[in-house]
Amino acid sequence: VKKIVPLLAILTAIVVTPLWAAPRSKNPHLKFDAKGNVLRPEGYRKWIFVGAPVTPNDMNGGKAAFPEVHHVYIDPYSFSIYERTGEFPQGTMLVKELTSIGTKKATSGAGYFSGEFQGLELAVKDAEHFANEPGSWAYFSFGTKPPYANEAKAHPTASCNGCHTVADQDYVFTQYYPVLRAAKK
Amino acid sequence: VKKIVPLLAILTAIVVTPLWAAPRSKNPHLKFDAKGNVLRPEGYRKWIFVGAPVTPNDMNGGKAAFPEVHHVYIDPYSFSIYERTGEFPQGTMLVKELTSIGTKKATSGAGYFSGEFQGLELAVKDAEHFANEPGSWAYFSFGTKPPYANEAKAHPTASCNGCHTVADQDYVFTQYYPVLRAAKK
Repeated sequence: VKKIVPLLAILTAIVVTPLWAAPRSKNPHLKFDAKGNVLRPEGYRKWIFVGAPVTPNDMNGGKAAFPEVHHVYIDPYSFSIYERTGEFPQGTMLVKELTSIGTKKATSGAGYFSGEFQGLELAVKDAEHFANEPGSWAYFSFGTKPPYANEAKAHPTASCNGCHTVADQDYVFTQYYPVLRAAKK
Repeated sequence: VKKIVPLLAILTAIVVTPLWAAPRSKNPHLKFDAKGNVLRPEGYRKWIFVGAPVTPNDMNGGKAAFPEVHHVYIDPYSFSIYERTGEFPQGTMLVKELTSIGTKKATSGAGYFSGEFQGLELAVKDAEHFANEPGSWAYFSFGTKPPYANEAKAHPTASCNGCHTVADQDYVFTQYYPVLRAAKK
């Protein structure tokens, strides 16, 4: 029994711990370096996809602000809270990975079809680190070509938040993200 | 000890089983009813997003074949095999959920932005059930408005596979899916 009970305790801990060990208002995907830069998120292509606006260069005078297809994801930790509460919790991360337009004509019709990756952007809601930002949201760019930068510094408030003020929910453009609207119901 | 040992066995089974209990060449997400219809996939909005072509009605004479934004996902079981082998395994499921265009103008620029869900389509590769289809791929529609149908019957071969023959890999349009190309590397 002496040997079995500690083993039992360990196994029980492995099974049970994940249910209540989530850090208080903390997202395990959100990491900072010693200078307060945000580390490039890992594994985001396996996160929850929320929507894909496209702003093609050819519809924006050759210079789209975000060229061109936007793959937008939310981290799964924050998504599970959003499903339950309908709010974006502290630590929420929204990734926007950009692709070029590969072609405008395919067998399924005329339109816009992705080519190659060309940018990684991130929005983070975190009152602990970004208390002075509207809604505590800060915005980051990790470059325009994979492999992206390992860390990024927050953009000045005005450069991003000016646009996000017209977003439907808490600076997030849920009006373009049916996946989030459906998750909230 | 008599009481602890069976409990220990159960806990060990819970911890260890998922590591090697995956069914042989079988996708746990793929389910059929007694008539051989495919059941509507569950939880696909949490699957691996692979790409989002858009074929807007206004670029297709008012009647796009697949209106309008396409959210394309692969099931996570098959994706993990694809990452390892670079091939789509038996049982692979690719979901295409369609949305309307909600607007063509946003603060990020002119383009196409999703509105509401309006269709659920599925491709399944399964030599056991669809041996006579090219590449063993069969195609399904679950309707154009949520809640979608609970099950669907395969479309006639010609109605879908005629287009998919020009896809880059095994009837899948990997040329438009940078996520799959990157996962393969």
